[in-house]
Amino acid sequence: MPEPGEGEVVVKVMFLSVDPYMRGRMSEAKSYAAPVEIGGVMTGGGVGQVVASRHPKYSEGDIVEGMTGWQEYACLNGRGVRKIDPALAPVSTALGVLGMPGLTAYFGLFDVCAAKAGETVVVSGAAGAVGSLVGQMAKMHGCRTVGIAGGDDKIAWITGELGFDAGFNYKTSGNYRESLKAQCPDGVDCYFDNVGGPISDAVLMQINLRGRIAICGQISQYNLEKPEMGPRLLGQLIVKRARMEGFLVLDYAERFREALTQMAQWLREGKLKYREQVEEGLENTPRAFLNMMRGGNTGKQLVRVSRD
Amino acid sequence: MPEPGEGEVVVKVMFLSVDPYMRGRMSEAKSYAAPVEIGGVMTGGGVGQVVASRHPKYSEGDIVEGMTGWQEYACLNGRGVRKIDPALAPVSTALGVLGMPGLTAYFGLFDVCAAKAGETVVVSGAAGAVGSLVGQMAKMHGCRTVGIAGGDDKIAWITGELGFDAGFNYKTSGNYRESLKAQCPDGVDCYFDNVGGPISDAVLMQINLRGRIAICGQISQYNLEKPEMGPRLLGQLIVKRARMEGFLVLDYAERFREALTQMAQWLREGKLKYREQVEEGLENTPRAFLNMMRGGNTGKQLVRVSRD
Repeated sequence: MPEPGEGEVVVKVMFLSVDPYMRGRMSEAKSYAAPVEIGGVMTGGGVGQVVASRHPKYSEGDIVEGMTGWQEYACLNGRGVRKIDPALAPVSTALGVLGMPGLTAYFGLFDVCAAKAGETVVVSGAAGAVGSLVGQMAKMHGCRTVGIAGGDDKIAWITGELGFDAGFNYKTSGNYRESLKAQCPDGVDCYFDNVGGPISDAVLMQINLRGRIAICGQISQYNLEKPEMGPRLLGQLIVKRARMEGFLVLDYAERFREALTQMAQWLREGKLKYREQVEEGLENTPRAFLNMMRGGNTGKQLVRVSRD
Repeated sequence: MPEPGEGEVVVKVMFLSVDPYMRGRMSEAKSYAAPVEIGGVMTGGGVGQVVASRHPKYSEGDIVEGMTGWQEYACLNGRGVRKIDPALAPVSTALGVLGMPGLTAYFGLFDVCAAKAGETVVVSGAAGAVGSLVGQMAKMHGCRTVGIAGGDDKIAWITGELGFDAGFNYKTSGNYRESLKAQCPDGVDCYFDNVGGPISDAVLMQINLRGRIAICGQISQYNLEKPEMGPRLLGQLIVKRARMEGFLVLDYAERFREALTQMAQWLREGKLKYREQVEEGLENTPRAFLNMMRGGNTGKQLVRVSRD
């Protein structure tokens, strides 16, 4: 357990988040953040309790969310740390629906896709932490909402409990384009892409005039040593005068409060549902990460580091 | 020679335009316009003189531009027809710098790319009818302007007479990425894509944070029976929060007058230069088209159908 320096706070980690973007930190390929060095502490978001503080904003006992990394105790300088109100919702939601995944879904759908009521929104990775929220928000917004996920149980969850209009299991579809056509009779206006690869190819070929594609993640590609080959389909963007845009939630930091307030309200009203899948023990974080990369999770994959 | 019906005008064609988009009319693949049927008149823009009119807006002797198709006389209903002032510039420019190619360059650069002074703009097909104008407009706008084309003569023309800051011959480059890096030391902010394929892959990998890619054409792909395979690089859009957008100049019809007025002024001031390559005789239109598809043209490829 570290000692806080001046302006620092020591947090005892309760929950860790594992997310697809972390795969990029395990590679030397150039990205928007530096890779983690071998022997270094793996970066990642966590929720925990302040156990020692020399920071004016945080007191012992506070529950906070921040980039704790994969460890039991984190010494943080206060940057990117936010206080969590445990009365509002379970503190783990600060890593899910009321945290990065929720914000990613919100800005990707409303800002990058600029989804409008009446439009058809397709989301891939639809049973994941982000995708499951995208579909629910799109539905609330008056969109026809179609999810793509890898498992009949996942499709049952998103179309049942979460209220997606339709969805299909890509592992048993046999023909993504036909599955999409059947479920999107009016084509696809917005595509929230978490996966890339052949699934996204199929959606691109169904995109409507002036369609918008928000590229949030490309999980199908993250484990590859070098880029996979795929058909060149960008001519479709001309035919449909469509737009494709990559985004990072951190770029929306100035609007986090607006989005979190809105999402907390939806949560209280029962309009946003979520599921958490919790792995026990810090030592099992790699296993939880790998399970999530393989699509083994439904909803948000977490690791419980401490029960206090 | 046809007779005009009520509200129609008969035009004797002087010049025909051949353009890459026409390749799409020769295929049954779904696109934004119906394909030309076998035995039908090939669609295409032309400039000619009105020889008979039962349309209130056009009189015998008027020079007009419109979709005449590949023929000597065209009977048009007035839709999409515009009168050309032969005192303003050679009438053939209505098919080039003061026509569709000019408008495509203008809206693609200023609207889709939204290029800003000080930024680096790369254009492929840089010695073609559109690309040669994109670079000149970008340069006027205060951008660093880099062109990619297939020939040392073409590069000499765009960097010499047209004032591009730099350019390279992709046929002898050996390594597109290295050539780009050398000529774009600050990366690429805007990419005006006329070609697609490996050249565009290389530009995408050099795109800057918040870069914009306007997809105007994908000429490298138009002759393929089915899509070529290429590396999946869309993750780069996330890393750079970049945007890729396809566009069609016809969608900007309401602003054509604004753009044409501006371009006519630049032309008068000697700020926009152009080159025409003219094939003689209607019967040689297919040859002119094929030559253009192979990159055999510098500047605008035209066919002279009649000298009157």
